[in-house]
Amino acid sequence: MQICYEPIGVMHCELKEPAKTPSFYSRSEIKGEIEVYGQFQEGLTGIEACEYITVIFHFDRSEGFELIQRRRGVGELSGVFNLRTPRRPNPIGLSILKLERVEGNRLFVGNVDMLDATPILDLKPYAGIERD
Amino acid sequence: MQICYEPIGVMHCELKEPAKTPSFYSRSEIKGEIEVYGQFQEGLTGIEACEYITVIFHFDRSEGFELIQRRRGVGELSGVFNLRTPRRPNPIGLSILKLERVEGNRLFVGNVDMLDATPILDLKPYAGIERD
Repeated sequence: MQICYEPIGVMHCELKEPAKTPSFYSRSEIKGEIEVYGQFQEGLTGIEACEYITVIFHFDRSEGFELIQRRRGVGELSGVFNLRTPRRPNPIGLSILKLERVEGNRLFVGNVDMLDATPILDLKPYAGIERD
Repeated sequence: MQICYEPIGVMHCELKEPAKTPSFYSRSEIKGEIEVYGQFQEGLTGIEACEYITVIFHFDRSEGFELIQRRRGVGELSGVFNLRTPRRPNPIGLSILKLERVEGNRLFVGNVDMLDATPILDLKPYAGIERD
């Protein structure tokens, strides 16, 4: 079964090289701008109330995967589903980004850990394990 | 740009009807079993150490979307990206499930809020906004 999606937007930020990309959003001080394509802009209504948003994206520069990888390329060996590596069977990324402000179809975000031009698949309000 | 994935597994649980599905994982007491397809089983190595896992799935029984919807069908109007509704431009779901145990290619999970037979796209260790 093949499941196909189309990006709803794109990330704009200074990160151009995978090797220089922070390994985890909570440790990133990089800021960026998510451009949501015009036809989806109305779907942002109310999102400005969120302090953090969940961003689901496509690792478009990741090629192939291994089921067992080293944590961050150098640590212990682990299964891919126990890692956040971009080299996954389905190269889907997930980050929790700080939402600093919204201007029209642009979301200004902090804690960016994805490359410039990354296709964005979905946005959701952030919810951890404890609250709705 | 079309981005296509193949499921890496499938949810087995008692939830058969969308209307009876808990609206949020943290409020669900339903248990279920994620079957990871055999060719990906090795990718589960080490996952048993996780108390919670992030499950990314496809809302396969969702049809169409509106950019503005009512929260849980009855609440205030809000943009789709400010809601967890299944009726999304890309019907991607995200739940944080309690990992109770692992047996081979089967993950026994709690807090289930997705329908039986839901295609699973990816699994990641749970990480909120504070820790790695």
